[in-house]
Amino acid sequence: MSDQALVLAASAIGAGLAMIAGIGAGIGQGFAAGKGAEAVGKQPDAQGLIVRTMLLGAAVAETTGIYGLVVALILLFANPLLGLLG
Amino acid sequence: MSDQALVLAASAIGAGLAMIAGIGAGIGQGFAAGKGAEAVGKQPDAQGLIVRTMLLGAAVAETTGIYGLVVALILLFANPLLGLLG
Amino acid sequence: MSDQALVLAASAIGAGLAMIAGIGAGIGQGFAAGKGAEAVGKQPDAQGLIVRTMLLGAAVAETTGIYGLVVALILLFANPLLGLLG
Repeated sequence: MSDQALVLAASAIGAGLAMIAGIGAGIGQGFAAGKGAEAVGKQPDAQGLIVRTMLLGAAVAETTGIYGLVVALILLFANPLLGLLG
Repeated sequence: MSDQALVLAASAIGAGLAMIAGIGAGIGQGFAAGKGAEAVGKQPDAQGLIVRTMLLGAAVAETTGIYGLVVALILLFANPLLGLLG
Repeated sequence: MSDQALVLAASAIGAGLAMIAGIGAGIGQGFAAGKGAEAVGKQPDAQGLIVRTMLLGAAVAETTGIYGLVVALILLFANPLLGLLG
């Protein structure tokens, strides 16, 4: 087993782990969608404002999922650890 | 144990881990579906608007699950780590 | 397997694990988005104030996700553990 193989294997696992962060955005944005639908049902006139607020908040909730994706892509495509091998 | 086998084995685990992100979308979109059904029950006249809002929000909640799928597919079908083996 | 390879491999896994912290911010910010949309539906006149409050709270909820990102980036790009190898 070479040093490189060990680091690359761990990077594959690390990339998979980083994607788990997406659980949060999925739950949170789904909650926002449900509350948005409920609010539109109560106040159809305010649909535009409600949807805009829902999407703005959902965009913020997306950020940590994107952080995870960025770390996974770094591990896969621009792995900085390989270069540190002696 | 060859280097390639180690990296490929870890890629299989990483691909599986990445799919765990789907937990979030499942919970969130299910909540949105429930709230949407509830809202339609209260205001059947607003069904079109309610469903549209629910689907828009659910589409947003799908994104992080798709990120996980993309990372898993990269690990399985376009593995960039193998090429980095010395 | 060299000492360096073991430390770097574990760092890759650690970076992935750190991103899991993002689950919390995703759930919390999504909850804020949903409640914000609900509040705007009830008081469309107060939309500006509601959104400002929602975003302020969401920014606070973002912090722990960013802590995770910072630790992951340190492990990847400024790994302090390698220098401690004898």
